[in-house]
Amino acid sequence: MLILAMRVQHEKIDIRTNGKGTYEITDEVQNKIDKSGVRSGMVTVFVQHTSCSLTMMENAAPAARGDVERFFEKLVPENADYEHDDEGPDDMPSHIRMVLTRTSETVPIVDGKMQLGTWQGIFLFEHRRAPHPRKILVTIIGE
Amino acid sequence: MLILAMRVQHEKIDIRTNGKGTYEITDEVQNKIDKSGVRSGMVTVFVQHTSCSLTMMENAAPAARGDVERFFEKLVPENADYEHDDEGPDDMPSHIRMVLTRTSETVPIVDGKMQLGTWQGIFLFEHRRAPHPRKILVTIIGE
Amino acid sequence: MLILAMRVQHEKIDIRTNGKGTYEITDEVQNKIDKSGVRSGMVTVFVQHTSCSLTMMENAAPAARGDVERFFEKLVPENADYEHDDEGPDDMPSHIRMVLTRTSETVPIVDGKMQLGTWQGIFLFEHRRAPHPRKILVTIIGE
Repeated sequence: MLILAMRVQHEKIDIRTNGKGTYEITDEVQNKIDKSGVRSGMVTVFVQHTSCSLTMMENAAPAARGDVERFFEKLVPENADYEHDDEGPDDMPSHIRMVLTRTSETVPIVDGKMQLGTWQGIFLFEHRRAPHPRKILVTIIGE
Repeated sequence: MLILAMRVQHEKIDIRTNGKGTYEITDEVQNKIDKSGVRSGMVTVFVQHTSCSLTMMENAAPAARGDVERFFEKLVPENADYEHDDEGPDDMPSHIRMVLTRTSETVPIVDGKMQLGTWQGIFLFEHRRAPHPRKILVTIIGE
Repeated sequence: MLILAMRVQHEKIDIRTNGKGTYEITDEVQNKIDKSGVRSGMVTVFVQHTSCSLTMMENAAPAARGDVERFFEKLVPENADYEHDDEGPDDMPSHIRMVLTRTSETVPIVDGKMQLGTWQGIFLFEHRRAPHPRKILVTIIGE
């Protein structure tokens, strides 16, 4: 008789950012998958905030990450006459940069490993100037 | 003997927009999860159109939503000499704004509730001027 | 006694691009779902690269696709004084265009078919000038 072992497991990653920038979380996510014992399935990484976001990124060249960060500074500038500015000049741009990037990333799991390409890493993209504690959920579905 | 109750369930949300703007659907999605009885899993919200999109957004400050909408009006203007203009000046910008945002959003479910952060809401982002009926699918996977 | 048949299946799509542009992969993804036998569930399409991306797109009007491509050429220009330029002028813009679009797309499956809207197609968005072999993973979860 066949009993399938499909299951779902939730894990948390808490990180403290040091202000604007990209923070790689690939290893932390893989560690949660290792711990879950899931060999084949899918992982969804979800960030519970509206002033930071997630993105895949080239993870070998720090210069590439700097270029991405500078691009967003220019595309969504701090001084652009926003109506919503209660929390300072970096607040509204942070919401827009979040909308332009991603709140969740989903990656296939095969043989217990995320199937990232050679240069792919998962990053938290902090859009606020000040350090912030950030909560990330990792949901693993598989067998 | 362990029999796992992992299952998948599909629901529909139909909404009629009143033209350009952001429309919160968080409660409608949670209602579908309540109805499904799924306690632990994941929900994917998917919009079946190419001239509107989905996004997470700051759901407390209406001014913030207005700023996001104005940003996209400026970033992807109506008068930009598009080749594809059969359906009016707001048509091609709507396809580009869709590409820059999201067609689906995925959120973890724990204890029967979407694990949104304090300020996170799920929004339909209507990019056309005229009112449109919009179809959204809600797929719930879990146990 | 109820034995649920929820399962996960992984498939691969390899395509060779002819340089910059959008390449529809909707039929290839549906073929993998047909082969899997899954009738109800969800498919996640994932691209294993950081210099190309995925997007949903209007699939009827080629002019619309051309407009999207021209928009990104202008929004993320090749000559913008990037720090990371080891691989040529089209390399850094390709990473930024990837961040602005999507690495994965998730679509509900009902009655064995992806529930795309009338005009929705799934496209690989190649951001490099030169032809490239590109690896796409298709993960199907369902019953």
